[in-house]
Amino acid sequence: MSLPYRTALIVGAGAGISAALARQLAAEGLRVGLAARDTAKLADLAAETGAATFTADAADPASVERLFGEADARLGEPDVVIYNASARAPGPLASLDPDAVRRAVDVTAFGAFLVAREAARRMEPRGHGALLFTGATAGVKGFPLSAAFAMGKFALRGLAQSAARELAPKGIHVAHVVVDGLVRSARRPDPAGKPDSTLTPEGVARAYLDLLRQPRDAWSFEVDLRPWVERF
Amino acid sequence: MSLPYRTALIVGAGAGISAALARQLAAEGLRVGLAARDTAKLADLAAETGAATFTADAADPASVERLFGEADARLGEPDVVIYNASARAPGPLASLDPDAVRRAVDVTAFGAFLVAREAARRMEPRGHGALLFTGATAGVKGFPLSAAFAMGKFALRGLAQSAARELAPKGIHVAHVVVDGLVRSARRPDPAGKPDSTLTPEGVARAYLDLLRQPRDAWSFEVDLRPWVERF
Amino acid sequence: MSLPYRTALIVGAGAGISAALARQLAAEGLRVGLAARDTAKLADLAAETGAATFTADAADPASVERLFGEADARLGEPDVVIYNASARAPGPLASLDPDAVRRAVDVTAFGAFLVAREAARRMEPRGHGALLFTGATAGVKGFPLSAAFAMGKFALRGLAQSAARELAPKGIHVAHVVVDGLVRSARRPDPAGKPDSTLTPEGVARAYLDLLRQPRDAWSFEVDLRPWVERF
Amino acid sequence: MSLPYRTALIVGAGAGISAALARQLAAEGLRVGLAARDTAKLADLAAETGAATFTADAADPASVERLFGEADARLGEPDVVIYNASARAPGPLASLDPDAVRRAVDVTAFGAFLVAREAARRMEPRGHGALLFTGATAGVKGFPLSAAFAMGKFALRGLAQSAARELAPKGIHVAHVVVDGLVRSARRPDPAGKPDSTLTPEGVARAYLDLLRQPRDAWSFEVDLRPWVERF
Repeated sequence: MSLPYRTALIVGAGAGISAALARQLAAEGLRVGLAARDTAKLADLAAETGAATFTADAADPASVERLFGEADARLGEPDVVIYNASARAPGPLASLDPDAVRRAVDVTAFGAFLVAREAARRMEPRGHGALLFTGATAGVKGFPLSAAFAMGKFALRGLAQSAARELAPKGIHVAHVVVDGLVRSARRPDPAGKPDSTLTPEGVARAYLDLLRQPRDAWSFEVDLRPWVERF
Repeated sequence: MSLPYRTALIVGAGAGISAALARQLAAEGLRVGLAARDTAKLADLAAETGAATFTADAADPASVERLFGEADARLGEPDVVIYNASARAPGPLASLDPDAVRRAVDVTAFGAFLVAREAARRMEPRGHGALLFTGATAGVKGFPLSAAFAMGKFALRGLAQSAARELAPKGIHVAHVVVDGLVRSARRPDPAGKPDSTLTPEGVARAYLDLLRQPRDAWSFEVDLRPWVERF
Repeated sequence: MSLPYRTALIVGAGAGISAALARQLAAEGLRVGLAARDTAKLADLAAETGAATFTADAADPASVERLFGEADARLGEPDVVIYNASARAPGPLASLDPDAVRRAVDVTAFGAFLVAREAARRMEPRGHGALLFTGATAGVKGFPLSAAFAMGKFALRGLAQSAARELAPKGIHVAHVVVDGLVRSARRPDPAGKPDSTLTPEGVARAYLDLLRQPRDAWSFEVDLRPWVERF
Repeated sequence: MSLPYRTALIVGAGAGISAALARQLAAEGLRVGLAARDTAKLADLAAETGAATFTADAADPASVERLFGEADARLGEPDVVIYNASARAPGPLASLDPDAVRRAVDVTAFGAFLVAREAARRMEPRGHGALLFTGATAGVKGFPLSAAFAMGKFALRGLAQSAARELAPKGIHVAHVVVDGLVRSARRPDPAGKPDSTLTPEGVARAYLDLLRQPRDAWSFEVDLRPWVERF
């Protein structure tokens, strides 16, 4: 079943989930934009998928406004917007660096707000669109030695809930995906003897596409994803 | 993408969600069994989908054991089991009838346990299967004048969590679907002027099939579903 | 500060939390009733605190109705009612005994409903009273190999929420205490070298009394309790 | 029962909850410090309670570090620290001002981190202390037209959970109070004919003192507070 959308913008694009999203969305016929602070690393993916790339700092208001303006011009107004950026500042509370904590919260949550704001501005007049946030276990449970990430991912979930309650009745599907497990990568393969014990980017991306295919009479706001052997 | 399952047993089958599930699962090529206390009402659906019907009382241990024995014989051991039965006993706490409350909890939750037990017995040796529970908003938030339904649906969610934590590492996908809104029916159509403001059985059933298609590296335990205009 | 209540009935009374509650409530000047299936074990506590004892099966409707009738006659209508009974049926889902599961849910949750119903009947006409439920971690998170306890304690929490939303606006304070940790006892003392690593019955009971002292402009519905070193 | 603490620092001090806290803590014999951006408004309260006042911007790292240094010097290291500051930026997502949103998150959550960090530095070496955060309904449920407050209060709850899991095993009681209702004030009295339908600062403050009196074998992490007639 084809997706009822035409243009997707993925903010915080890198190798894992967002690359799989770019491939799957392009395969469904959507135009895809990929935004990152460093787009050099996205060249191969862009070539493979035909995606456009945009250099932007998700935590900077002016940069995000410019990003959407450019995406409008090059791709058309995005009707799917996915926020996938995050940053951490691990360590004991007493020795955390305030600048690092602020940056972690900015990238994980404040940037999501900036992106959601631009998305809402485009989707509300059309009464149509989808806004998806990549959450984490840390957004549901605050772990020790991880205060900054807990702050950022909790804030992201609060933003997503607020946005869903405001925008869903305007025809915009807002959803929050709780990624509960490590995502597999070349650097971080499955542990030996434990097949499928880490999330594949493809498996995660498929769940986003399932959300995008939902009819508006049966929308999910929140979906959790974890490998079969993951403790939760 | 085809489903990695062959035989589905739906317990608590009636006109709405379970009929849509029967149609969609049959269309995917699965053998389907439908169990209800009164199977006369299922004749048309069975004829349409080729489903087998089984008379059973989900809250009765002997009846559930017999049901699975018959399903094994007629369909083969089910590798998808969906629990969809529930009962209510609304009213002020002070005037609720204990028998009605007990029956509501039995049908909504105790029957789910009986069915989960039989499912586990069949799925564990194979290291494969899916066990889906139809939950409700009442399982996440206890509403006034609805103590019995709150008890039943909360208990169902507790059962589902316990089952998921025990069975997922054995290869069995356990999930709990929070149906948050009225399900449309001939008797209960969309209110005039409010299109798609109630859940369609088809939309809900599709979410179950999305769960059944998930690869085991990215399973969801809980998914919520509501119409775009539903308050939550 | 003295408690704004006169008579407390504790259902599911034994050695631990309920004994500490009986002592603390009696020390505050309340008349105390203790109900259990076997009241012989309560003789010393009754002698020490002046509490009346009642033989009752909390999961039996007729027995609970009789219990409250007797309490009315011997103590006056209770304006504090505490439900403290529970039962488990641990083990793998596939091998659980249905009768044991039913009994666990009956004692943990159905009995709580029966007791809440009698409490509501007495408290509503007065627009005054407190109804406290002893919950557990298992009511918030369903653990593996513990389906029956998860069902019972989740159901209890659902009941408590429903009761609070119905009865609080009628002047009845309903609360659910999440006891998250082992309760210390003669049989089960603190592990060596880990002081205060288990809950004391006295510490738990104090939290109930804190709830009973709250003014109605600032009532808590839910309070969690755990030892300082407990993981959560 | 007297409190096992000697010095309390309340950050984000104003007329409501923090004034009631200052009075009740001073009445228990604690030295009290009150920090706010504008301390002129605290003069009467300081005179009444004997509290010391400190001018500080809770969202500014240098200011918070200076605040604690001054508090150490004038009062001794605080062993109770309460974070009570928050800010909002209401409105539709599409028209929110990024600077206002950043400020709201900074005051509500980033400042709480800065304060928690200084508190941890002082309390960890002693293995003793209490760190209390004033939360809100908005930290548990994200409301429409209130994205910034949702972000801030969710982040605060995530911080509190992370801090509790890190610091509780070190002897520091961390708790998060969910203030679920309007707090009464001279400007905002109870609606006519609806007695006790808003939270009193005194009722809220008492719940904090209840937390401070808990023995470490039975600590609460989270407590909700609402008026008896409040919907939830």
